[in-house]
Amino acid sequence: MTQIDEARAGRVTDEVRRAAKGEPLGAEDISGLIAAGQAVVCANRRRPAARGLSAIGRGLKVKVNANIGTSLDSPDVAGELAKLRAAVEAGADAVMDLSTGPDLQEVRRRILEESPVTVGTVPIYTAAVGAARSGGIRGMTADGMLAALRADAEAGVDFATVHAGVTMQVVEVYRSCRRICGIVSRGGAFLAHWMLFHKRENPFYERFDEVISIAREHDLVLSLGDGLRPGAIADSFDRAQVAELSVLAELARRAQDAGVQVMIEGPGHVPLHEVAAQVRLAKSMTRGAPFYVLGPLVTDVAPGYDHIVGAIGGAVAAQAGADFLCYVTPAEHLRLPGVEDVRAGVIASRIAGHAADIARGIPGAADWDREVSILRRARKWGELCEKVMDPRAARESRASAVPSREDTCTMCGEYCAFRVLDEAGV
Amino acid sequence: MTQIDEARAGRVTDEVRRAAKGEPLGAEDISGLIAAGQAVVCANRRRPAARGLSAIGRGLKVKVNANIGTSLDSPDVAGELAKLRAAVEAGADAVMDLSTGPDLQEVRRRILEESPVTVGTVPIYTAAVGAARSGGIRGMTADGMLAALRADAEAGVDFATVHAGVTMQVVEVYRSCRRICGIVSRGGAFLAHWMLFHKRENPFYERFDEVISIAREHDLVLSLGDGLRPGAIADSFDRAQVAELSVLAELARRAQDAGVQVMIEGPGHVPLHEVAAQVRLAKSMTRGAPFYVLGPLVTDVAPGYDHIVGAIGGAVAAQAGADFLCYVTPAEHLRLPGVEDVRAGVIASRIAGHAADIARGIPGAADWDREVSILRRARKWGELCEKVMDPRAARESRASAVPSREDTCTMCGEYCAFRVLDEAGV
Repeated sequence: MTQIDEARAGRVTDEVRRAAKGEPLGAEDISGLIAAGQAVVCANRRRPAARGLSAIGRGLKVKVNANIGTSLDSPDVAGELAKLRAAVEAGADAVMDLSTGPDLQEVRRRILEESPVTVGTVPIYTAAVGAARSGGIRGMTADGMLAALRADAEAGVDFATVHAGVTMQVVEVYRSCRRICGIVSRGGAFLAHWMLFHKRENPFYERFDEVISIAREHDLVLSLGDGLRPGAIADSFDRAQVAELSVLAELARRAQDAGVQVMIEGPGHVPLHEVAAQVRLAKSMTRGAPFYVLGPLVTDVAPGYDHIVGAIGGAVAAQAGADFLCYVTPAEHLRLPGVEDVRAGVIASRIAGHAADIARGIPGAADWDREVSILRRARKWGELCEKVMDPRAARESRASAVPSREDTCTMCGEYCAFRVLDEAGV
Repeated sequence: MTQIDEARAGRVTDEVRRAAKGEPLGAEDISGLIAAGQAVVCANRRRPAARGLSAIGRGLKVKVNANIGTSLDSPDVAGELAKLRAAVEAGADAVMDLSTGPDLQEVRRRILEESPVTVGTVPIYTAAVGAARSGGIRGMTADGMLAALRADAEAGVDFATVHAGVTMQVVEVYRSCRRICGIVSRGGAFLAHWMLFHKRENPFYERFDEVISIAREHDLVLSLGDGLRPGAIADSFDRAQVAELSVLAELARRAQDAGVQVMIEGPGHVPLHEVAAQVRLAKSMTRGAPFYVLGPLVTDVAPGYDHIVGAIGGAVAAQAGADFLCYVTPAEHLRLPGVEDVRAGVIASRIAGHAADIARGIPGAADWDREVSILRRARKWGELCEKVMDPRAARESRASAVPSREDTCTMCGEYCAFRVLDEAGV
């Protein structure tokens, strides 16, 4: 029985109970949302039961994912494990292993072994790397793609991105759109290339029943990837993107009907005034399936600062209903992120998620802000630094500029507004 | 004649013509907005005509201000001049000299001399520092406050924050509100302290006709400060804040009627779901006066990252109509910012402003994004780095991880989605 099966049978699983900790909803309510396809709990049975589990979806706290993984130019496994630790320490709820280095199986095994949080993958990468010596992307086979999904599920992965919406018909729509930035999703590009070269339909679409069956077997959450997500502001909300979303919505229903949990992936590069509309369209078309966005990035012009660009889009998206934010790091568009980039990316997304939790009226979300502000008003800088989102950064910042009076900071000194108020007794 | 007088007489001044460069509106249109009190051009006649001038207001590009200035703990003039240069290099449209160090007159003179952009000040700080040896804040006099405004205007300051809305009545409302964080505006706190101690009305309010007369004489733009801006999420949109805004709206009309340009200052700490409403209320009450926000900060819990918190609030505020963003740096709430903080703060606010320019449909705003994305699609990393918002950061980031293939980056290498598309011919 999968999580959906159990939820539909009215049983609240241990996984849901554990994921409910710290949430504004109780386990019964979350179970009801899982039954309705509006929340998921990512919990591959092969992974240790003791790790942290997250529920993602309607009415729940916004969750944050950090992408890590080796590449051909940066195949160091130890480096990626350091990023895993940095992401978890910074508060990520999940990591995706997007490795494409030659060591893929080794890094995957180690990440699954060591991660105390949810782990996701993109099986088409596994398939492409596996075919590296037999023609690369063109050398992939339909069987190989399905096998990669199965291998990831068997390895213990909790959720997997499957770009099943990049169909022949959708690719035709895409070609007629003449985008500025084409396809920026690697999975989407791999599949489009393969499909056009072999003149064959997307195996994940054509054999979606097998995809469902593999997911059912391991209770793997399917994250239906947006292979045609806009990669430039100018490409947002075009016919290609919406055509793919429509396919994803149809596939989501099929998977959910078969007892498989589903998330929907969203953009990408989106101008600020379209962010909420993107979320609302996806939520409406998918009957409220959990929505997982990458950014969104509200401008294309700030590589080097895309964690900030993504925090703006992420906050507005989550306020509008997005449930799961994939971080973007300062390295995005320029290079593979390092450990400090990972840290900066997770914190930026957590800020966005928390701001949205307050805006969505998540019970208790603003209590944290109140606590911090009470300490600030009391000028208890030491205690304040321990309560904030990144205590290390706050401590270091303050330690770098010690004020002459402990109860002030170097910006205002004795002109501190709070001191001035205290002296006036107001 | 002031800029408003000229605009009302149908004359387009040289200052407006110069400020119109790069704007989506022509000088005539901007002049019309100035006449209507919906835009300002900050141009003290005493400063060199050659410097950059900015128009701020309706339908114009969002502008960014950087706060700099010495403090008691950090009185180094050279350090603040380095921040001035960093702010301008990062693209700030204005700087405010908020010095409260003992060297105030010297740093002010140097900043006015060297700044190629608009300069603002807060005369109540000048007054407080001037009274440092005669009782400090309590030792200020009403005459001293007005004299400080005059001195700043005569020194060549382009706009000055005057907290004229902190009236006796407003302070009473404030006291009944029992805020978490009281008054966080230094100017507001100084005035509330002084008023309560001396049991006297706010001199800037009581003698607002003199304030107007000084501003008229030098064509100084009055930035009506929100001394009671919320300093915690929990304090947003309370009766005190709105009571003060109502006074500011009344004073704005009086100043504009007398031919003096006015901006309105806004919060502060505001939850994401109230940001747009804050802007709309202020715009409506002030008949569309230019709105100048500090942040807003959409959570209290992230000191160390408040430039990101402020970029989220700033983007949403500017999308809703805010015209001028005061940056917040990573040092906010912890210490006086350093040069790198200034740089980070300006860039974060510029990202917010640009995202909002696109969202507001400012003609041409998205052209920059298109240019950058075309270079990205063409995999011209070198050219791309020169076109982005902070070329230095992009160049350094890329140089820190040189890919084995020049036409890729270390994240994807040969799996670059664009390469894969090019090979497929799509």
